[in-house]
Amino acid sequence: MRANRLAVEELPEPTAGAGQVLVETLACGICGTDLHALVHTRDFVETSRESGMQGFVFDLERGVVMGHEFSARVLESRDNRLRPGDLVVAQPAMPTPEKVHVVGYSNEFPGGYAERMLLSAPLCLRIPATLDPRHAALTEPLAVGLHAVARSGISAGEPAVVLGCGPVGLTTIAWLAARGAEPIVAADFSSARRRLAERMGAHAAVDPREEPPLDAWRRVDPRHAVPGRPLVIYEAVGVPGMIDQAMRAAPRDSQILVVGLCMQPDRFHPTIGVNKELSIRFVLGWSPEEFRASLQALADGKPDVEPLITGEIPLDAVPSAFRTLANPDAHAKVLVRPSLRT
Amino acid sequence: MRANRLAVEELPEPTAGAGQVLVETLACGICGTDLHALVHTRDFVETSRESGMQGFVFDLERGVVMGHEFSARVLESRDNRLRPGDLVVAQPAMPTPEKVHVVGYSNEFPGGYAERMLLSAPLCLRIPATLDPRHAALTEPLAVGLHAVARSGISAGEPAVVLGCGPVGLTTIAWLAARGAEPIVAADFSSARRRLAERMGAHAAVDPREEPPLDAWRRVDPRHAVPGRPLVIYEAVGVPGMIDQAMRAAPRDSQILVVGLCMQPDRFHPTIGVNKELSIRFVLGWSPEEFRASLQALADGKPDVEPLITGEIPLDAVPSAFRTLANPDAHAKVLVRPSLRT
Repeated sequence: MRANRLAVEELPEPTAGAGQVLVETLACGICGTDLHALVHTRDFVETSRESGMQGFVFDLERGVVMGHEFSARVLESRDNRLRPGDLVVAQPAMPTPEKVHVVGYSNEFPGGYAERMLLSAPLCLRIPATLDPRHAALTEPLAVGLHAVARSGISAGEPAVVLGCGPVGLTTIAWLAARGAEPIVAADFSSARRRLAERMGAHAAVDPREEPPLDAWRRVDPRHAVPGRPLVIYEAVGVPGMIDQAMRAAPRDSQILVVGLCMQPDRFHPTIGVNKELSIRFVLGWSPEEFRASLQALADGKPDVEPLITGEIPLDAVPSAFRTLANPDAHAKVLVRPSLRT
Repeated sequence: MRANRLAVEELPEPTAGAGQVLVETLACGICGTDLHALVHTRDFVETSRESGMQGFVFDLERGVVMGHEFSARVLESRDNRLRPGDLVVAQPAMPTPEKVHVVGYSNEFPGGYAERMLLSAPLCLRIPATLDPRHAALTEPLAVGLHAVARSGISAGEPAVVLGCGPVGLTTIAWLAARGAEPIVAADFSSARRRLAERMGAHAAVDPREEPPLDAWRRVDPRHAVPGRPLVIYEAVGVPGMIDQAMRAAPRDSQILVVGLCMQPDRFHPTIGVNKELSIRFVLGWSPEEFRASLQALADGKPDVEPLITGEIPLDAVPSAFRTLANPDAHAKVLVRPSLRT
């Protein structure tokens, strides 16, 4: 990524330092945050700086190789925990004396839209032998869904409405189903994504142009009118106006859990929040434990993420994939696989 | 209140129905919500309607007698719980077959900016003999502060920042002090209000033009940098931009508790919320238990609310008091006392 453009370029081979491994990228998912970062690079860096997230602060003039949802094979190891040939996933973080870089948002450390990366050996997890490395590349987005569900504090038998069935919405649904949330009502414009939502465990998936998601919840949840029944609305769209829409549609005392990333300034009506005593909880990322739990869930085949992989592309198709994913329609997760040739 | 104007008019004497009492208003506090309701009447009614709060929906064309923070003397009783001469406070609610009216926001039931009101006998609480009825009129705003503190879940020894030292901010501070929150850092432009904040229990009170409130917190809380130390920021100003300001200033993982009422649409930056994993909790009103607990606290003299009463006015001074309170400077709570004569 150079100045809001993607380019395919030859870069020098990275060299592993102490505690690092040089790896060959096997698969790397394209994340919605990358799409945002490409379009809104300057805002992305500025809000990261303002929020004290130095790991996401990079120099706009120098190039960045994005990609932080990856599986890889170790080529060279400068750490005795790992050997050449080991298959790994890793938290996309690279500690250095200056700061902890985020792999994929760093001028120094290339991400997974490249044939080679450097990873921090202590942050690598071995991919279980039975797990397809293509599926292992979904560890990170699956952890995002787990984190959202965990932070919401939802319990078995409690209802959830998920707005947006992109990868974040879909992995959120998978964890809601695993936790026994019921009913889970999903909303997306795309019929293909709605089918994926149902495969992940949604009890109903609606086109919001045809039925407002909260109406669908009232239709399918026989206990919707029970006083004190909590409701969590997961906002996984991340465009301006969605939080306001969710606040207007929410019943009293609801929690709106914001897991979608809206880069622009947004508008809302505080009186609606006050009148209904709403709470809005913003979440980001995952904990190391959640990352590990997601890899284990993939190894257990729960959820089965094969249906979420809607495209696999070589490196030189990344720029066109970003254009396609700006209007994703039927897409969920597109994997970049550097070993594929055009 | 007629069409965004206040007028002093003679109205017919109300007649108590079954379960109701006719009372003489002793004192009634002017609430910031009344100031908002006068300026933004149409929005106030519309957002109430949209939020399903029928009690606050009134006909704009007909007059409304506002005032919902009152103490009163029973003149006539249609309920065997109360007798003429009893001194009472009451939750400002009036159940009818059609809806539960809010006394003070109803075309049917005049509020406390009047010599006479009808109250619902089951919602009345007797004022303890030792309690000044002028102080008892602060039961309702004190309950608002208790509700805010209770909903935030703050515990003894945890820090709090209170933005705005009007009556809501001040009663919030009083309950924070009662709960043992520490330190409590208050911010207001007015030096008189800052002094009141300290009397209510704030450990520091700053002028935000001179020191940003979050800087003041870091200055006075030796544990401010301890990882995982929670922080609650109480937003008690209620003007556009305050929530965004609080989000920008907040450290990671903070809770912003919105108890101020901003009637206008507002702007914020969702990425700031996401990057810091903030939560925003909007609160309104109080529970019957909180209302009762506030009356008891007043009877116990904790807090001593005498310093909060910064003005006492007769009925015909209400319009000019509303103008003064639009820029309150040194004012906290102004009591309307219909028995006073100009």
